[in-house]
Amino acid sequence: MRRTTLLLLGAAFAAGAIAYLTPGTGHADQEIYVTQIPDGYRDWKLVSVAHEAGNLNDIRAILANDIAIKAYREKKLPFPDGAIIARIAWKYVPSEENNKIFGRDQSFVAGDPPEWYLQFMVKDSKKYAATGGWGYAQFGPDEKPADAKKMATCYPCHEPIKARDFVFTRYAP
Amino acid sequence: MRRTTLLLLGAAFAAGAIAYLTPGTGHADQEIYVTQIPDGYRDWKLVSVAHEAGNLNDIRAILANDIAIKAYREKKLPFPDGAIIARIAWKYVPSEENNKIFGRDQSFVAGDPPEWYLQFMVKDSKKYAATGGWGYAQFGPDEKPADAKKMATCYPCHEPIKARDFVFTRYAP
Repeated sequence: MRRTTLLLLGAAFAAGAIAYLTPGTGHADQEIYVTQIPDGYRDWKLVSVAHEAGNLNDIRAILANDIAIKAYREKKLPFPDGAIIARIAWKYVPSEENNKIFGRDQSFVAGDPPEWYLQFMVKDSKKYAATGGWGYAQFGPDEKPADAKKMATCYPCHEPIKARDFVFTRYAP
Repeated sequence: MRRTTLLLLGAAFAAGAIAYLTPGTGHADQEIYVTQIPDGYRDWKLVSVAHEAGNLNDIRAILANDIAIKAYREKKLPFPDGAIIARIAWKYVPSEENNKIFGRDQSFVAGDPPEWYLQFMVKDSKKYAATGGWGYAQFGPDEKPADAKKMATCYPCHEPIKARDFVFTRYAP
């Protein structure tokens, strides 16, 4: 896994180097995604929670590092460089244990990791200028990053939220 | 709000003192609930997330202080004294903004605080011996604690989960 990450990082750096050496290819930055899981994300503070029904059918927590949480709480936009927002998803599953105790079918909890277990937005206004200043990342349960084709869908989906610096999730007090 | 908390704390201490002075009234500890919101709970680490449908109709995050998180991650039961688990709930609301962008009705997010916005379990195996070593707390959006009648429902509901030290929520990795 670590080797894969390094290989992919290597590939990303190589792509960057090639773009740098061949001016005029344009939008080189747009090809660069985050391919390494940020350290310590599971210890970060909570932004909010959500449920995505339909095909995703997950329940999720949005966490953020201290730089991003500070900006969230102070309602400062755009997020400063160094801000990272994490989205962890789990399969949305009924809890038979809870339902039995509560006496009704009402409880849904976090199950196994789904196809796209982890997502991150990493703010670096220069490096990721072509995608609104955010580098996007997406990982499966095996912690392998999504391929470039999949990653190309991130920014267009976030673009309509430009007024909130491309971030869907609002802080839940 | 702060004055109310102090008054209620005062009342709780008074009740404790009366129980102490009148031996034989029994189960005095069982009457003592946590009536103050633990400091800094919103900064605690995430345990898991859940959705309660039906009458509750909320989406919730379960956070825990460092003592409780350590026990969770090390799978050590029972939780040690000093462990505190927090449950924050928000109204379960569809996100029209997200649904419009996603092109389908699938997104549910955290809305306003519901009737019982905050709950806590505070581990003190001596103080709360009569209720499995946990002191229970419940607060509305006004941060006022629930009355004793309401609080009396906490422990009986948690009792079936004795094998996991009375804690419903499992850690979501």
